[in-house]
Amino acid sequence: MEKRKLMYEGKAKKVFETDNLELLIVSYKDDATAFNGLKKGSISGKGIINNKMSNLLMQRLEKNGVPTHFVEEINDRETVVKKVTILPLEIIIRNISAGSFSKRYGVEEGITFETPTIEFSYKNDELGDPLLNSYHAIALGLCSKEEIKIVKKYAFAVNKYLKAFWASCGVILVDFKIEFGKLSDGTIILADEISPDTCRLWDSKTKEKLDKDRFRRDLGGTEEAYAEVMKKLCGHIREDI
Amino acid sequence: MEKRKLMYEGKAKKVFETDNLELLIVSYKDDATAFNGLKKGSISGKGIINNKMSNLLMQRLEKNGVPTHFVEEINDRETVVKKVTILPLEIIIRNISAGSFSKRYGVEEGITFETPTIEFSYKNDELGDPLLNSYHAIALGLCSKEEIKIVKKYAFAVNKYLKAFWASCGVILVDFKIEFGKLSDGTIILADEISPDTCRLWDSKTKEKLDKDRFRRDLGGTEEAYAEVMKKLCGHIREDI
Ligand SMILES: Nc1ncnc2c1ncn2[C@@H]1O[C@H](COP(=O)(O)OP(=O)(O)OP(=O)(O)O)[C@@H](O)[C@H]1O
Ligand SMILES: Nc1ncnc2c1ncn2[C@@H]1O[C@H](COP(=O)(O)OP(=O)(O)OP(=O)(O)O)[C@@H](O)[C@H]1O
Ligand SMILES: [Mg+2]
Ligand SMILES: [Mg+2]
Repeated sequence: MEKRKLMYEGKAKKVFETDNLELLIVSYKDDATAFNGLKKGSISGKGIINNKMSNLLMQRLEKNGVPTHFVEEINDRETVVKKVTILPLEIIIRNISAGSFSKRYGVEEGITFETPTIEFSYKNDELGDPLLNSYHAIALGLCSKEEIKIVKKYAFAVNKYLKAFWASCGVILVDFKIEFGKLSDGTIILADEISPDTCRLWDSKTKEKLDKDRFRRDLGGTEEAYAEVMKKLCGHIREDI
Repeated sequence: MEKRKLMYEGKAKKVFETDNLELLIVSYKDDATAFNGLKKGSISGKGIINNKMSNLLMQRLEKNGVPTHFVEEINDRETVVKKVTILPLEIIIRNISAGSFSKRYGVEEGITFETPTIEFSYKNDELGDPLLNSYHAIALGLCSKEEIKIVKKYAFAVNKYLKAFWASCGVILVDFKIEFGKLSDGTIILADEISPDTCRLWDSKTKEKLDKDRFRRDLGGTEEAYAEVMKKLCGHIREDI
């Protein structure tokens, strides 16, 4: 596998072409941004943790019926993934009220929903990733009705699996954002990353935040929180084998 | 029917109790507001037009399978309606891109959708009536899954009927906002109003705006537009008999 041209540099990752047209190399950075790029900073060691965590979780999801872009971890920060055309939708599942949900609807954080909620936002930085529903997504030509159906099915499956998995690590999965993409034959697979950058993860006992909210809200101990939640996950995986 | 205590004064209507616990009198004002009350003004004669138009349309919808709160028009500005507990949701159906849809998603006005879109917003002035989806509405305890299903069914039926009806009057139904409420036995019926305050109505030939956007956007001729669209509706109804 040879790394070729830098295809895209995002806020958290670089994406490189490879000598295989169907594969990419994703390189995780320590850069952190929040509030649509308004707040900028760095979380030392984050790239290494996010790379490893995302790969561990995607491999488990793959075994549990959710196809993913994961191919092979090549070093601490870099992973080979299947190249997809990302659907311009952020899919957010919530088990507990927090963040933009609480702000938007004027409710406190920490309310456990009877059933998880799903929402889409239009992946468009200029417009501030506005919330939309499936009717809007179809009207805007972002995806088809059939694709929405598949995405919803996988998203709920991801939640079901990850919620139980994190619980067994002593962590509450509050909410998360995922992205899906299409392979050249139209197959929809889970792409991007699953990490403390994209999930809200609370310590089951102390309810301490072990995710990017520490950075967003200047709570301090961000590096320690990322390390802590990674340790919980790895500890569990070890027992697990 | 005796008018009793003023129960609620909204931005466009006053609502009075009556000597019948299950009935209210709605009184339409000429007051106009826009942008969640930021812009205030008055559209002379609007109350009379909205009262009559809403009543005419609700009676037709009632005959076409959509139960409504309409009971009896008692004068130019006042109507007896069935008292309901309003579901705290604004239901918006769009046939063509315009207004907040165009702004939110960065698309021009006037794009006709292949299928109409439906969206909900949380009726909460303090929060600015934020967009939400059915998962959110249920998680927030605003309504039940079953109620959402009924509301969606009726909303699409309202659109189907009104789109065809307005077309036969030479008017394009671009989008509209409706509200539903619950009778004391839980039955869901269409409430509030259907008028140029709550619908976007464009002249089929000239595409001229015949609705509250003239006021919102300072286009002038607002009174004339309300009178014009009422004339088109009445002209049609006369031919119709
Ligand atoms: N398998 C994949 N194939 C192609 N692109 C991918 C794949 N997985 C993720 N991506 C995309 O690669 C980019 C990763 O970079 P990063 O996450 O840093 O972006 P970002 O700053 O969040 O910006 P944005 O997601 O808005 O483009 C994202 O645009 C993501 O959608
Ligand atoms: N049949 C009904 N029974 C009870 N309330 C009703 C009925 N129909 C409409 N309403 C309510 O009466 C009020 C009408 O007033 P108006 O339309 O001026 O309110 P508004 O300024 O739009 O404010 P808001 O709708 O946010 O309360 C609205 O609150 C509406 O929801
Ligand atoms: Mg990203
Ligand atoms: Mg109103």
